[in-house]
Amino acid sequence: MKIWDKGIAVDKKIEQFTVGRDRELDLYLARFDVQASKAQANMLARVGLLAAEENEQLQRGLTELAAQLEDGTFTIDDSFEDVHSKIEYFLTEKFGDAGKKIHTARSRNDQVLTAIQLFLKDYSERAAAKTLQLVTVLLQKAKQHQADLMPGYTHFQAAMPSSFGLWFSAYAEHLLLDLALFEAAHTVADQNPLGSGAGFGSSFPIDRQMTTRELQFGSLAVSSVGAQMLRGKTEKTVAFALAGMAATLAKMAYDLVLYNSQDLAFVELPAAFTTGSSIMPHKKNPDVFELIRARCNALQALPNTLMLATSNLPSGYHRDFQILKEILFEPLTQFLDILDIVLFALPELKIKPNLVEQAKYDAIFTVENINQLIQAGAPFREAYKQVGHAVEDGSYVAHREFHTTHLGSVHNLGLAEIQAKVDAFRSRSRLFR
Amino acid sequence: MKIWDKGIAVDKKIEQFTVGRDRELDLYLARFDVQASKAQANMLARVGLLAAEENEQLQRGLTELAAQLEDGTFTIDDSFEDVHSKIEYFLTEKFGDAGKKIHTARSRNDQVLTAIQLFLKDYSERAAAKTLQLVTVLLQKAKQHQADLMPGYTHFQAAMPSSFGLWFSAYAEHLLLDLALFEAAHTVADQNPLGSGAGFGSSFPIDRQMTTRELQFGSLAVSSVGAQMLRGKTEKTVAFALAGMAATLAKMAYDLVLYNSQDLAFVELPAAFTTGSSIMPHKKNPDVFELIRARCNALQALPNTLMLATSNLPSGYHRDFQILKEILFEPLTQFLDILDIVLFALPELKIKPNLVEQAKYDAIFTVENINQLIQAGAPFREAYKQVGHAVEDGSYVAHREFHTTHLGSVHNLGLAEIQAKVDAFRSRSRLFR
Amino acid sequence: MKIWDKGIAVDKKIEQFTVGRDRELDLYLARFDVQASKAQANMLARVGLLAAEENEQLQRGLTELAAQLEDGTFTIDDSFEDVHSKIEYFLTEKFGDAGKKIHTARSRNDQVLTAIQLFLKDYSERAAAKTLQLVTVLLQKAKQHQADLMPGYTHFQAAMPSSFGLWFSAYAEHLLLDLALFEAAHTVADQNPLGSGAGFGSSFPIDRQMTTRELQFGSLAVSSVGAQMLRGKTEKTVAFALAGMAATLAKMAYDLVLYNSQDLAFVELPAAFTTGSSIMPHKKNPDVFELIRARCNALQALPNTLMLATSNLPSGYHRDFQILKEILFEPLTQFLDILDIVLFALPELKIKPNLVEQAKYDAIFTVENINQLIQAGAPFREAYKQVGHAVEDGSYVAHREFHTTHLGSVHNLGLAEIQAKVDAFRSRSRLFR
Amino acid sequence: MKIWDKGIAVDKKIEQFTVGRDRELDLYLARFDVQASKAQANMLARVGLLAAEENEQLQRGLTELAAQLEDGTFTIDDSFEDVHSKIEYFLTEKFGDAGKKIHTARSRNDQVLTAIQLFLKDYSERAAAKTLQLVTVLLQKAKQHQADLMPGYTHFQAAMPSSFGLWFSAYAEHLLLDLALFEAAHTVADQNPLGSGAGFGSSFPIDRQMTTRELQFGSLAVSSVGAQMLRGKTEKTVAFALAGMAATLAKMAYDLVLYNSQDLAFVELPAAFTTGSSIMPHKKNPDVFELIRARCNALQALPNTLMLATSNLPSGYHRDFQILKEILFEPLTQFLDILDIVLFALPELKIKPNLVEQAKYDAIFTVENINQLIQAGAPFREAYKQVGHAVEDGSYVAHREFHTTHLGSVHNLGLAEIQAKVDAFRSRSRLFR
Repeated sequence: MKIWDKGIAVDKKIEQFTVGRDRELDLYLARFDVQASKAQANMLARVGLLAAEENEQLQRGLTELAAQLEDGTFTIDDSFEDVHSKIEYFLTEKFGDAGKKIHTARSRNDQVLTAIQLFLKDYSERAAAKTLQLVTVLLQKAKQHQADLMPGYTHFQAAMPSSFGLWFSAYAEHLLLDLALFEAAHTVADQNPLGSGAGFGSSFPIDRQMTTRELQFGSLAVSSVGAQMLRGKTEKTVAFALAGMAATLAKMAYDLVLYNSQDLAFVELPAAFTTGSSIMPHKKNPDVFELIRARCNALQALPNTLMLATSNLPSGYHRDFQILKEILFEPLTQFLDILDIVLFALPELKIKPNLVEQAKYDAIFTVENINQLIQAGAPFREAYKQVGHAVEDGSYVAHREFHTTHLGSVHNLGLAEIQAKVDAFRSRSRLFR
Repeated sequence: MKIWDKGIAVDKKIEQFTVGRDRELDLYLARFDVQASKAQANMLARVGLLAAEENEQLQRGLTELAAQLEDGTFTIDDSFEDVHSKIEYFLTEKFGDAGKKIHTARSRNDQVLTAIQLFLKDYSERAAAKTLQLVTVLLQKAKQHQADLMPGYTHFQAAMPSSFGLWFSAYAEHLLLDLALFEAAHTVADQNPLGSGAGFGSSFPIDRQMTTRELQFGSLAVSSVGAQMLRGKTEKTVAFALAGMAATLAKMAYDLVLYNSQDLAFVELPAAFTTGSSIMPHKKNPDVFELIRARCNALQALPNTLMLATSNLPSGYHRDFQILKEILFEPLTQFLDILDIVLFALPELKIKPNLVEQAKYDAIFTVENINQLIQAGAPFREAYKQVGHAVEDGSYVAHREFHTTHLGSVHNLGLAEIQAKVDAFRSRSRLFR
Repeated sequence: MKIWDKGIAVDKKIEQFTVGRDRELDLYLARFDVQASKAQANMLARVGLLAAEENEQLQRGLTELAAQLEDGTFTIDDSFEDVHSKIEYFLTEKFGDAGKKIHTARSRNDQVLTAIQLFLKDYSERAAAKTLQLVTVLLQKAKQHQADLMPGYTHFQAAMPSSFGLWFSAYAEHLLLDLALFEAAHTVADQNPLGSGAGFGSSFPIDRQMTTRELQFGSLAVSSVGAQMLRGKTEKTVAFALAGMAATLAKMAYDLVLYNSQDLAFVELPAAFTTGSSIMPHKKNPDVFELIRARCNALQALPNTLMLATSNLPSGYHRDFQILKEILFEPLTQFLDILDIVLFALPELKIKPNLVEQAKYDAIFTVENINQLIQAGAPFREAYKQVGHAVEDGSYVAHREFHTTHLGSVHNLGLAEIQAKVDAFRSRSRLFR
Repeated sequence: MKIWDKGIAVDKKIEQFTVGRDRELDLYLARFDVQASKAQANMLARVGLLAAEENEQLQRGLTELAAQLEDGTFTIDDSFEDVHSKIEYFLTEKFGDAGKKIHTARSRNDQVLTAIQLFLKDYSERAAAKTLQLVTVLLQKAKQHQADLMPGYTHFQAAMPSSFGLWFSAYAEHLLLDLALFEAAHTVADQNPLGSGAGFGSSFPIDRQMTTRELQFGSLAVSSVGAQMLRGKTEKTVAFALAGMAATLAKMAYDLVLYNSQDLAFVELPAAFTTGSSIMPHKKNPDVFELIRARCNALQALPNTLMLATSNLPSGYHRDFQILKEILFEPLTQFLDILDIVLFALPELKIKPNLVEQAKYDAIFTVENINQLIQAGAPFREAYKQVGHAVEDGSYVAHREFHTTHLGSVHNLGLAEIQAKVDAFRSRSRLFR
C-alpha cells in the first residue's frame, strides 16, 4: 500500500529497488512518527481542520500504536511501502475518513523529516548520557591509577615520565569535549519542519508554532524551503558528532592494543576478554579493542559517505535522501554498542606497576636531570647540552625522582577541576534537559 | 565452536561483539573456502602430509559441502564462530583425525585471505561480464537514436547541437574504460596467499606453486609477510573499481533525472517506472534513477571507508580487517543489482524528438553560423565577433543545418570503432578468460 | 637555526623534506605565538621563574614583534626552521639569557598548539561574523523578492508554487544553523593547552590558570596528555564547520547555475560577472557560481583528509601533525574569500518575473485545485484522484490563485521570526563575545 | 588576455576569483600543450585547413616555445589568463593570422583535456620507473638481511619468527602490485580527446586518428561527449593509483617508526636523519618516516577530494573541473619526492641483530615446539593444547631452532621468483614502452 497510489501498477522490479530496506529501517522512526502525528492531529483540531471527536479517535489510535511499539507487537508487513503507510492504514481501517485526515496539510516529506528530527534529537541525548557515564568511569580509573607511572611518548619515542592518571583523565576530558559536536547535532535536530509539506508549505491555515511547542522543538524551521533542506543536514551533523567521538575512542583502543603487546606490556586484559589463534597456543589477542578501533574508524567515514550521497543536489527533495537511513541508522546503534563494550571492558583492565623502572626508559628522565642542573644554577641551554652529551657517551645516570605541582601534571591531576567542567557542561547543555 | 579454543570461556558480551556479522557474511566466502580447502588437501597429500585415503575422504566431504552450498542447504548456526569453523567441524565429525588435518600448514589468516582473493577475483569477472552487456545495450541505443539531436551543454548552458547517439555511445565507451580498474582489482585478487600461514610461513614442506596452479591463480604472493598484506588491499582495489564505474552510472542517472524534468523534457519514463506523491497527483517521479544515483554515490565512498578502517595499521594481521567484510560485501551485491536495474530500465526510455527546434536553443547553432562565415572567407576571430554581436543585439538567426564528418561527431558516431575497442578489450583482458 | 640543536648536522635532504612549508604557513600563527609568549612570560614572572626586569624586556621585545607583524615587516628567512625559532632567536639576540628563558616550562609542542588554538578560535569568530553579514543580505533579498514566485521542485520535477522569498530565507536560516558547528569548533579551540609541555607537563611550579585567564581561554585543558590530544582535533572540528557551511553554499551555487540555464531561466547575472567561450560567441557562463560550488565541495573533503592524516595514531605527539597546517590553513582563507565573493555577487543577481505563468508549470497548481475541491466538500483522497485523472486525460486547468497563511509559506515568510532567531543566536553565542 | 574575449570587461574581483592559480599550475601542462598543438597543426595542414607554409611557421614557433620550456625561460605573466592564451598570443604576435588558425576545430575544452591526458600518461610512466627503482633497492635489502630474524606480529602481539628478508621483499612485491593501478590510470590517460571540441565535435573535416597516432595515444576517445567526460576521470584514476601506493609506503613508514622505538628497537637511523626535541636532549626522532607516513596518508585522501569536487555533475564541461589542477598537481610532485626520500633513506637503515633471542619473544616459537611434537607423532590439536598449557603454567621452553623450506618463508625468500615477476611486468606493461 502506498499513500500516493496513482492507479497505475508500478513495475515490481522497480518497486523492490526503490523501496529498498525502508520497512526495516523505519522501525527506528515509528515511535517518533506516532508522536508527531499526535501533535499534528491536535493542531489540526485546534485550527478547525479536524473535528474534536475525530481528533479524539486519532489520539486513541495513535496511543494504541505507541503501546504496540513499546511492547514490540508492531510490525510492518510487505504490503506496506513504509512505516508511514502502515500507520495511516491502521488509522483509516479503524476510523474511516478521520484516519485519512491525519495527512491534511502534511506531505510525506515533512512527515518523514519530522520523525527523523525527533529521532536524532533523542539519539543525541541518549548518546550524551552514555558518554557521561564513560567519563565518570575514566575519572575513577584516573584516580585509582594516579600513582601508576608509564613512559610518555612523542614520535613513538619514549620521552618523559607520564602516568595512567594523566592518560585516563585525558580521555575523560576529550569525551566531554566531543559532546560539543553532539550539541551542534542536537541544535540542528531541534528545528521543527512540520507543516513545510513537500518543501513549499500549503494554503491550509495551520499553526506551526503550536506543533513546535507540543513536540518540544527548540525552534521552528521557518522557511518551508529551508525546512526541507534539513534533510541530510541533520544526519550529517550527527555523523560529524559520531566521527568526532569515534576518533577519540579509536585512539584509546589503539593505545591499549599497543600497551597490551609484549614490547610495551603496560596493561593486561582478563583471558576471558581475549581471543586465541588457530595455530599459536600462546596468543591472547586483544580483539575487542581492535574491533572497537576498527568500528570507530569506519564511523569516521560516515560524514563523507553522507556528503557523497547528497552533495551537488539542488534544493528540494530528492529520493536520494532515502538511502541516508541505510547509511546512518545501523551505525547509530553500533556506536551505542561500542560505548557499552568500552564501559564493560575498561574496568577489567589491569595496569602493570613500576613500568618506568626499566633501564630502557632511563632517558625519559633527562628532563629531570636538566632541571636539577638548572636548580644548581646552570642556564637551560647549557644543562640541555650537558645531559645530551652524557646520554651520547653513555655516562648518563637517570635522576628518577621528580615532583610536579602544576594542574594536569603527574602529581596534580586536577581531577576536581575536570569534574567541575563535567558538572558545568551537564547543567548548561541542552543535551541534558 | 572456535578452532582456536583455549580452554577458557570467552566472555559472552565480548564474544558477541567480536563475532559480529561473520556468520552471515561468510556465506559469500563459503564456496571459495571449500575450493581452496580441496586444493590445500591435494597439495598436502602430494607432499606427504596427508595420506592418500585421508585426502580422498576430505575431497569427498568438501564436494558434499559444495553441493550443499549449490542447493542452498548449507547453514552456519550460532554455535560456530564462522564458516571456517563450520567446515572444519563438518569434516572432523565425518572423518575424525583426517578432518583435523586439513588445517596442517594453514592458519586462519591465509585461509580466509585465500577465500577472499578467490571471491573477489570471481566477482570482478562477473561484474565485467555484466558491464559488457550494458555496453552492448548502450551501443544499440546509440544506433537507434543516432538521428535524435539534443542540445549539448557546457556550464549547464545550452552550447552546441549534440545527439542521443553521442550521449549513449559516450557512456558505452566510459563503462568499457572503467573496466581498467576492474582489471587492476583482478590482478591484485589473482595473487595466491595460501601457505603464508599467519603471515610468516611455516616449517612444513608445502608446495605453494601447486596450489597456485590448482586454484588458477595467476601468480603466487611469494613473501608470506607480503601475502598477509593483501588483506585490505584487494578489498580496496575492488572498491576503487566499483567507485570508478559507480561515478559513470551516477552521472548517467543524473543526466536522466534532469532530462526527465519539465524544463528540459528530453526523455520520458513509462508510468510504471515512476512513483507518485502523497499530495501532488501530477507527479511521476524518476525515483529509480535518483536511487541509482544515490547508491552509486554511496559506492563512491567505499574506498575511503576502507582506507579509514585500515590506514596506519602496521604490517601483520589485525582483527580490524574483519570488518571489511561488513563494509564491502553487501555493496558488491548492490552494485550488480544496480547494473541489472539499469539494464532493465534503459531500453524503456523514450526519447523526445525535435528537441533542438525550440527557440530557446537557437544560440546553440552560433558555431555553425560562424563556420558558414569562415567558409565565405572570414577569419575565425572576425566571424566569432560578428555572430556574437548578432546574438547580443537580437538580429541573430540560427543556421540550423550542419553536417559533421569526423569520428565521434553527431553525424559520424564511430560505433564500429567503439565496438572494435570492446572486442579488443574482451579478447585481451584477463577478466574474460 | 633549530631550538633543539643537537650538535650533529642534519642531512640537508632530510631537513628540506621535514621542514616542508612551515616557514610560510607559520605566518598564520605568528601573531598568536607572540600573544601566548607574552602570557607565558608574565606567568613565569609571577611564579618567580623570571625576574621582573627580564619579563619587562621580553614584553618589550614581543610587543615589537607584534608591531612588525602588524605592519608586515616581519619575515622568516631560510636559516630558521619555523616562526618559533625566529621569535626565540630575536629575543635572545636582543636580551641574551632572558630571551632564552621564555622557553622555560614550555615545549615546542604546547607552544605550537597554543598558537593554533588561539588562531582557530579567532578564525571561528571572524567566519561567524562574516556569515551573519551574508545572512543579513539574504534576508534583505528575501524581502525584496517576496512576491517573485518560482516553481518549487521535488525529484527535480516541478511540484508546487514556491518563491524567491522562501528560497533566499531558506539559505539565511541554514547559514545561521551552520554556525552551530562553528560554535563546537570554537569550544574545542577555547581550551588552553599551555603548560602541558611535550604532553606530560613539567616539574616547574607554573600557574596554568593564570595563562588561561590572560589568554582569555574559556577553559583549561587540564590533563597534559589530553592537552596534547587537542592537536588535530581542533583542526578537524573547524574543518567540520567549514564542511557544513560549504555544503550550504555549494547547494545555493548549484541552484543558481541551474536557474541561470536556458531551460529554467529564473535568474540572470550581469555580463561582467560571466565568462565566455573560445568558440561559442553566445556563451555567458556562470563560472563564478561553478567555482564557488567546486571550492565548497573541495572544502567538504577537508575533514576526511584530516582524519586520514591522523587516524590510528596513538596518543602523544607525532610529526604527522605538522602537515595539518598544509591541509587546513589555505582553505581557511579560501573559505573567507568565498563568503566575500558571495556577498559581492548575490546583490547583483536579477530575478525573472512571472515564471510560474508558463504553461509547462501548470501542474504545479494541482495542490491548489485539490484544496478548492476540499473546500467544496470533497475528501482529500477523492479530490486527489479527480485532479490526477484530469492531468492524465488533459482536461486539467490550473487554478493559479492561492493564498497561504502559515509561517514559512509563500505569503507569510516569517522574516521577523527568522531575524529573531538571528538576534537570539548573536546575543547567546560565545562566537560573538 | 582571454581567447574568448567578448568585448565586455569582466569584473576584476570575479576575474581574480575565477582565474585562481591557473597560471602557476599550467606550467605542468605547457610542454604537453605545445606537443598537442604541433600535432593539431600538422593534422590541419594534412586535411587542408592550414596552408603548408602556415604549418611550417607554427611548427617553428612551437619548437621555439618547447625550447623555452626546456631551458626555463618560458613565463606566463598576469596579462594572460592561462598558458593556452599565452601560447596562442605568442604565435599570433609572430605569425599573424596563421597563429590564430591553430585554434581551428579545437576548443579550449579539448585543448586543455589533451594536455592533461598527455601529462598524466607521462607522469604514470615516470612514477612507475621510479617505483621499480625502489623495488630493486628493497630486493637488495631483502637479500642483505635474509638472515636477520625479527618477531612477526599479529594483533600487534608477538606471534612467530619472521625476518627482515621477508619484510623487505613483502614491500617489494606490494609496490610492484601497486603498479596495477598505475596501469589503469595509464589506460585512461591513453585516450585521445583532441578534436572533440567543447564536447560535441565540430563540422570541420578533421582527422582524429591522425592526431592519435602522432601523439602516440593508444586509443581514440571516439564519442565527443565521452571524450569530454574524461575530464575528472583521468585525474581520479591517477589519484587512485597514488592512493594505492601511498598506503603501501605509509605502512612501511609506520612499521619503521615502531621498529625505531625503545620498546621494539629493531632498526636505527643515522643521527643525521633524525631530529631532536627542544626540551629532551636524548631524543632522535624519526620525523622523516613520520612525514612520509603523514604525506602518504594525505595522498590517500585525494580520490575522495576529487570525487566530492566532481560528483553529481551532469555530463558536459563545468568550470568545476578547473580546480582539479589545484587538488592534484602539487601532490603529484610531492609523491615523487616521497619516493626519492625513501630511496635515499632506506639504504641507511641499520638493522639490529639477534632480536628474537630476547626472552620476551620466547613464545613466538610455540609453533615450532608444536611441530616438533607432531613430528614425534602427536596430532596437531593435542600438541597445540600441550604447548598452550606449558605457556600458561610457565614450564614452556622455547624451541628456537627451525628451518623452513617453502617459497616465501624465512629460509626460502624466493627472491628470484619475485625478480621474475618484476621482469615479466616490465616487459609486458604499457607503462614501460
